[in-house]
Amino acid sequence: MVKHLKREIGGIEWTGRGISIVDQGALPGLVKRIELCKAEEIVQAIRRLAIRGAPAIGAAGAYAVALAVKQATEERWGARRLSDAMNEIGNCRPTAVNLSICVQRAALKVPFGFAAVLNEAHAIVGEDRTANRAMAEAGADWLVSLFGDRKLRILTHCNTGHLATTGGGTALGVIRALNYRHMIESVYVNETRPLFQGSRLTSWELMNDGIPHQIQVDGATAGTIVGGYVDVAIVGADRIAGNGDFANKIGTLGVALACDFARIPLIVAASTSTIDLDTFEGDCIEIEMRDPTEVTKWPNCDITPEGAIGHNPAFDVTPGRLVSAIVTEKGFWR
Amino acid sequence: MVKHLKREIGGIEWTGRGISIVDQGALPGLVKRIELCKAEEIVQAIRRLAIRGAPAIGAAGAYAVALAVKQATEERWGARRLSDAMNEIGNCRPTAVNLSICVQRAALKVPFGFAAVLNEAHAIVGEDRTANRAMAEAGADWLVSLFGDRKLRILTHCNTGHLATTGGGTALGVIRALNYRHMIESVYVNETRPLFQGSRLTSWELMNDGIPHQIQVDGATAGTIVGGYVDVAIVGADRIAGNGDFANKIGTLGVALACDFARIPLIVAASTSTIDLDTFEGDCIEIEMRDPTEVTKWPNCDITPEGAIGHNPAFDVTPGRLVSAIVTEKGFWR
Repeated sequence: MVKHLKREIGGIEWTGRGISIVDQGALPGLVKRIELCKAEEIVQAIRRLAIRGAPAIGAAGAYAVALAVKQATEERWGARRLSDAMNEIGNCRPTAVNLSICVQRAALKVPFGFAAVLNEAHAIVGEDRTANRAMAEAGADWLVSLFGDRKLRILTHCNTGHLATTGGGTALGVIRALNYRHMIESVYVNETRPLFQGSRLTSWELMNDGIPHQIQVDGATAGTIVGGYVDVAIVGADRIAGNGDFANKIGTLGVALACDFARIPLIVAASTSTIDLDTFEGDCIEIEMRDPTEVTKWPNCDITPEGAIGHNPAFDVTPGRLVSAIVTEKGFWR
Repeated sequence: MVKHLKREIGGIEWTGRGISIVDQGALPGLVKRIELCKAEEIVQAIRRLAIRGAPAIGAAGAYAVALAVKQATEERWGARRLSDAMNEIGNCRPTAVNLSICVQRAALKVPFGFAAVLNEAHAIVGEDRTANRAMAEAGADWLVSLFGDRKLRILTHCNTGHLATTGGGTALGVIRALNYRHMIESVYVNETRPLFQGSRLTSWELMNDGIPHQIQVDGATAGTIVGGYVDVAIVGADRIAGNGDFANKIGTLGVALACDFARIPLIVAASTSTIDLDTFEGDCIEIEMRDPTEVTKWPNCDITPEGAIGHNPAFDVTPGRLVSAIVTEKGFWR
């Protein structure tokens, strides 16, 4: 049963006609695979967060370029139209660097035709899977060097697992590697408002793997960390600037400040493709502002008075000096 | 219209038969007054958060004692039954000190009969209203001494207004006093998961008063404060220990850590009745653990997989050294 579920949730699959993904908007109530056979459909799926997570949208973006090239050939698009389509893919979400990097990689293969672009997308997926495995082991090794092989209590924020990548995950990959070593006592999962990636997605992945966890509101972060309930916090990143500052899901900075205050380690797990040396520091990272109704409305419930205004940044930036270690597929930096 | 609404929301009213309150569970969709004529009904209303906020439940608790005395006389209860009823009232929520203090005050009048207890409850309401006004002015004065009379951008957490007290509010009272002085540029209101007291209640009160504000997820706290979007954070307290540590709605510690990191002031507004000198430090404050389904379930939506476990502390404790000033009806302490 668990194995079956694991196979079911395996990230992005090329179907021959397009990509197949699990619709993350329907989870955890419904496990629904959807097939996306046009670039435009992938862009829509990224925008409405049917697929999300920096590495996953990077790979999806590369496949979208391949599908745009195919459509351009079939429908005899001009160069300008194809270029516009690729720009739209690369810019459909601004904060994660992976999307634009992967689209650029795919774009370099466009002169060689559809098959070459598709192979580049496959290569991106392969590299991401390998990177996931390597960073998971590196992260677990680093924690063993800190804590020995005792069982750990871990806090994580947002979703950084199968659903956010094309492999085992970044921060959640480290947690999976620790679980494989029987080193998990429990995981505190922040629900991650406004879209509940923690309670909807991370909890679902941990449940599938049988990893003990409990879900808490994001406001409980500081109380849990400062109160001594956890040994370490592990998060992912959407973009890491040259000086170590990093953007990640809104709420991550609060995790970092609490870890700093409580003097427990904060680990950032991300592939080197998330490091953006062209961005000197965190202040230069563009923070996506999303639809305020994600905060103010909820299906079938009034959670704000009519006319209330929402403030809805999707990410925050954590100063590099609050990070104990950045774990990548090439090892870790303190 | 605004005046009408202001009158409508005026805290707790004695009707001659019991108390009338606005059912906070129905807001902001529905403004529904309910009358509670038995102690038991008040206890239930406090438990289900139809009425909440440290000063408001303190006053409601005192009225509940009066109603218990009346019922004891009418139904010829023994002393033991009345004593059990008063214990139940005093303990129906553990963290706020006001409830147990107000119940104790009312209990001292029990030998003098129903009218004496009722008068004590009225006196508690009168004192709370006076304290609200005084601390609001003291808080505004202190901010003027810090910032001059320029317009301020303020962050607040949970609800500390009319609905949480019997008067103009504690932290929200300070915000109202600033608004009266034309000193509000905008208020960032944390939605305050799990029960959305910020987006449901504080936004509603600010809307009624025409105070510009925007609602954000609790996870946005650190990004907003560290990003320089606000000048000061103002919160209430449920219990202030002798050393200045204080318990308040879960998420408050995160506000405090971000203020400390960004070096902006954090003000705690509370009446002196919230100060509990018998509690030496924050670690001694009992933190209420509430039903985990407040975190894991949402009407008509699956936000967690079946069987997921929630961790749901209602409060956290903030060390006194992170507080810039405690504002009470007797002035402020730095």
